[in-house]
Amino acid sequence: MKATNQVQQAMNGTTVINGIEIDTLKATIGAIRNEPDLGACHFRATNKWLSGNHNRSRVTGFYGAQQEIAHKQTFRMDADEPAILAGNDKGANPVEHLLHALASCLTTSMVAHAAVRGIQIDELESEFEGDIDLRGFLGLADDVPKGYTAIRAKFRVKADPADLETLRGLTAFSPVFNTLISGTDVDVKVELK
Amino acid sequence: MKATNQVQQAMNGTTVINGIEIDTLKATIGAIRNEPDLGACHFRATNKWLSGNHNRSRVTGFYGAQQEIAHKQTFRMDADEPAILAGNDKGANPVEHLLHALASCLTTSMVAHAAVRGIQIDELESEFEGDIDLRGFLGLADDVPKGYTAIRAKFRVKADPADLETLRGLTAFSPVFNTLISGTDVDVKVELK
Repeated sequence: MKATNQVQQAMNGTTVINGIEIDTLKATIGAIRNEPDLGACHFRATNKWLSGNHNRSRVTGFYGAQQEIAHKQTFRMDADEPAILAGNDKGANPVEHLLHALASCLTTSMVAHAAVRGIQIDELESEFEGDIDLRGFLGLADDVPKGYTAIRAKFRVKADPADLETLRGLTAFSPVFNTLISGTDVDVKVELK
Repeated sequence: MKATNQVQQAMNGTTVINGIEIDTLKATIGAIRNEPDLGACHFRATNKWLSGNHNRSRVTGFYGAQQEIAHKQTFRMDADEPAILAGNDKGANPVEHLLHALASCLTTSMVAHAAVRGIQIDELESEFEGDIDLRGFLGLADDVPKGYTAIRAKFRVKADPADLETLRGLTAFSPVFNTLISGTDVDVKVELK
């Protein structure tokens, strides 16, 4: 059991549950409740092809709470493919990055919503597996989907057993989970440079 | 124009287009065409919650071509949230990682399919923006979607103008793009540790 994940009173008097300053999170929730327009966010990334299957994304900031907000640092994420897919394995591949996005979002959703409800989580880990038939991507069979046809997530949580059902339900708040099960519009434009 | 992205004859006699060894890729395509079961892949990731909104995924290998295949290295991806969402900004957040997954997949799909068709790409970069209304995630409005409602991608490619329409069409092969526009089943299990 890690001390950082227990209910604490921080030096400044704020309450910390699951490592999250509850007052900060509740202030954000309260502000958006009072002024719904504050909820509109635009998240962004740029990407640059390096060579072969190797490319790199950068994330520097986003629009939220009616203002441009810069991250504390620029985040760089590399993607590549393994040798069997003609890459050099310099990064996880795009569909593996998608599993990471889902894993991190379900995890954060459970932890943050638990904190708001005063539910302590001591440990949380998970495994993800998704199915893709490469005949779709490679254009070998028109009737084979090109994307994931199923993804399975298995979480193990160390918490009060009485909270298990509630914790299970909190994963349903995850934005990435909801994007994946419902789908979304993606508009792709390609111009000459 | 980077030499690595031009059509080359590698030392071993293989043809390299867009930095991709075409013979390797064509061998994979040919093998799956001859034996469709080779196309079935299971991609995987594990995730561990660290504290607060900070968690880390690991990707070590996958199942493909009817065998377990280990990556050359273990890939670690961190996710966190910015201060306004009660995080410490130690990584891009989950929905930003999703944009990276999409960006890298559209890029790789265009580059690899162009290579197979003998189309040279000299430069390729892109910008992504997606819309999320936080009232959904925060549970403040049941009628507001919790995930992305729209994502816009804008590519700039340096290539022969005559190839532009073909290149535009090749993005449609992307597995992450297809997962997002069609949606997929996601089964989430939560057990006590």
